Amino acid sequence: MSVYLNSRFAGFESYVPGEQPQDRKYIKLNTNESPFPPSQVVIDAAARAAGELNLYSDPECVQLRKAASQVFGVPAEWILPVNGSDEILDFAFMAFCGKDAPIAYPEISYGFYPVLSGLHGIPAIEVPLKDDFSIDYMDYVELHQNIVIANPNAPTGLVLTRDQVEEIVRSNPDNVVIIDEAYVEFGGESSIGLVEKYPNLLVTRTFSKSHSLAGARLGFGIAQSTLIADLNMIKYSTNPYNVNRMTAAAGTAALGENDYYLTNCGIIAANREYTAGGLRDMGFFVTDSKSNFLFARSDKIPGVRLYEALRERGILVRHFSKKAIEDFVRISVGTREQMDQLLQAVSQILSS
Amino acid sequence: MSVYLNSRFAGFESYVPGEQPQDRKYIKLNTNESPFPPSQVVIDAAARAAGELNLYSDPECVQLRKAASQVFGVPAEWILPVNGSDEILDFAFMAFCGKDAPIAYPEISYGFYPVLSGLHGIPAIEVPLKDDFSIDYMDYVELHQNIVIANPNAPTGLVLTRDQVEEIVRSNPDNVVIIDEAYVEFGGESSIGLVEKYPNLLVTRTFSKSHSLAGARLGFGIAQSTLIADLNMIKYSTNPYNVNRMTAAAGTAALGENDYYLTNCGIIAANREYTAGGLRDMGFFVTDSKSNFLFARSDKIPGVRLYEALRERGILVRHFSKKAIEDFVRISVGTREQMDQLLQAVSQILSS
Repeated sequence: MSVYLNSRFAGFESYVPGEQPQDRKYIKLNTNESPFPPSQVVIDAAARAAGELNLYSDPECVQLRKAASQVFGVPAEWILPVNGSDEILDFAFMAFCGKDAPIAYPEISYGFYPVLSGLHGIPAIEVPLKDDFSIDYMDYVELHQNIVIANPNAPTGLVLTRDQVEEIVRSNPDNVVIIDEAYVEFGGESSIGLVEKYPNLLVTRTFSKSHSLAGARLGFGIAQSTLIADLNMIKYSTNPYNVNRMTAAAGTAALGENDYYLTNCGIIAANREYTAGGLRDMGFFVTDSKSNFLFARSDKIPGVRLYEALRERGILVRHFSKKAIEDFVRISVGTREQMDQLLQAVSQILSS
Repeated sequence: MSVYLNSRFAGFESYVPGEQPQDRKYIKLNTNESPFPPSQVVIDAAARAAGELNLYSDPECVQLRKAASQVFGVPAEWILPVNGSDEILDFAFMAFCGKDAPIAYPEISYGFYPVLSGLHGIPAIEVPLKDDFSIDYMDYVELHQNIVIANPNAPTGLVLTRDQVEEIVRSNPDNVVIIDEAYVEFGGESSIGLVEKYPNLLVTRTFSKSHSLAGARLGFGIAQSTLIADLNMIKYSTNPYNVNRMTAAAGTAALGENDYYLTNCGIIAANREYTAGGLRDMGFFVTDSKSNFLFARSDKIPGVRLYEALRERGILVRHFSKKAIEDFVRISVGTREQMDQLLQAVSQILSS
């Protein structure tokens, strides 16, 4: 922190992403990436776009939005592509929240929400989870605050039904409700179908997990045109060309092969159930995750020790130091082979 | 604007980038892009990176910063790569300015500065230019405010010397001075060499113009480690993986071929002088631009009319409706062939 940093950041702590060590090869199960590379069609589209990099990308992302419109089943005007879904969250916090307009979210959820609140000086209302780590949707019904909920939630992987989401959105008509669907393709129920009915609903999506494009940075905001116009205003005031040419081309191509990616998501969901079973057989408590990660705890070993022991064995998982979840590790679901290696390593660690 | 937009945005106007029409082919001289495509080495590097898009990019951009360190002649720790230089400006306004910490900039300059001020609620001090559209550097000496100056300035193309910049930086030790060098490679004097001496200096760069990477989105902030740490804090709190894999690879490759790009910049500078001469021969007042654009006015035709007439002829230039410069057009410098087409079209318009 320099002497020049504005005083409003005193005590502020920024987000810490999962480590990306460059020192050796790890089995990376710590940042919820897809184990499947993008398809050749996507690689080729990105490579073609690289030939025209001297020209700015289309700030309106016309082709990309058209392709997304087909897949999401909403008009292109309801879609705002962004440089990873963190960006649409940032835009939404800026547009709809403020000192006078707090935001509510689950106390245990994506670590970016408190960071964005702190960054922008937005009062945060942290709503506790139930004892089983699930979200009690009734806590948000008629709350009359802006709300952001990850569905599936992170790092628990637990879901709300679409009916529960609808009740939250319906009962807070004067506030924006953001449903962060970063992990929905692995088993959750999407709320995109509700956007038509509710002008206060913003659904966010990312192609980092489901569509093998974490390294391309591509996310989407989906809402009625009026909300999208507000978010566009923020975009045009911070980074009009936020989505680069190669990513726009890769995303458009990936949308054209949506079935391929949904098949991959299905494989990952199957690997998740397989791995959850293996962990439970070893005595772990594992939440009923519908995402591409598992959230697991063993009475036999503290979370941080399991994280360290796996790291020594070349397997990276994520550990959070937050008190309420410090006993857990979060394990991204990879290929069956990777999961077998993980289960074997865990077994060795527990018996050593 | 929706009913959900926070009230602090009442009356706020977002940035309007140069048009990117998709309806027909234009000679695009409106957004200061390079007419030269990226080299094959850059295209190949981006294409290779596309094969690993399922993995997040390195949030620390280690390889890219190492390559940039060689070219910029500063330690890698002094460099922060960003998703286009608009992003580093946004980060800097957020980090160092605030309601209690205004920012000063030339009244006529890059249109993004007032937009960022408005967006973040930062009081702006707009300093008039001299009658010849140049910046009087003495206006900023001992100003004791945060300052941002584009050098060369936009859309005038006029420069400050490094000595003048140093005097500004030296005499405002308690404030951050941002020197926006988006166009410096076309004839300005860089202030990067001053960073070592002044902990309050931030130099920003973009590869959009000089390095044929507008469509890749790549910019840099260059400052001592303490300022970079503050900016990194903002980055990690908004978009930790802001630079995607393909752009990082393309940028690293472009830095390895820096001489090629500087040669291109030299060709563009020569084309600029050629075109300025042609316009002056037709009676235009043309500022002494050291950038990759010309800023020109004719008593024979209003700026907006010239813009429209050129557009009808398939040539896009930029017109700004701001009163003080409404007589001008800004013309990006392209190939000699494009410049000949422009001069011919202007000649026809003036004589029609």
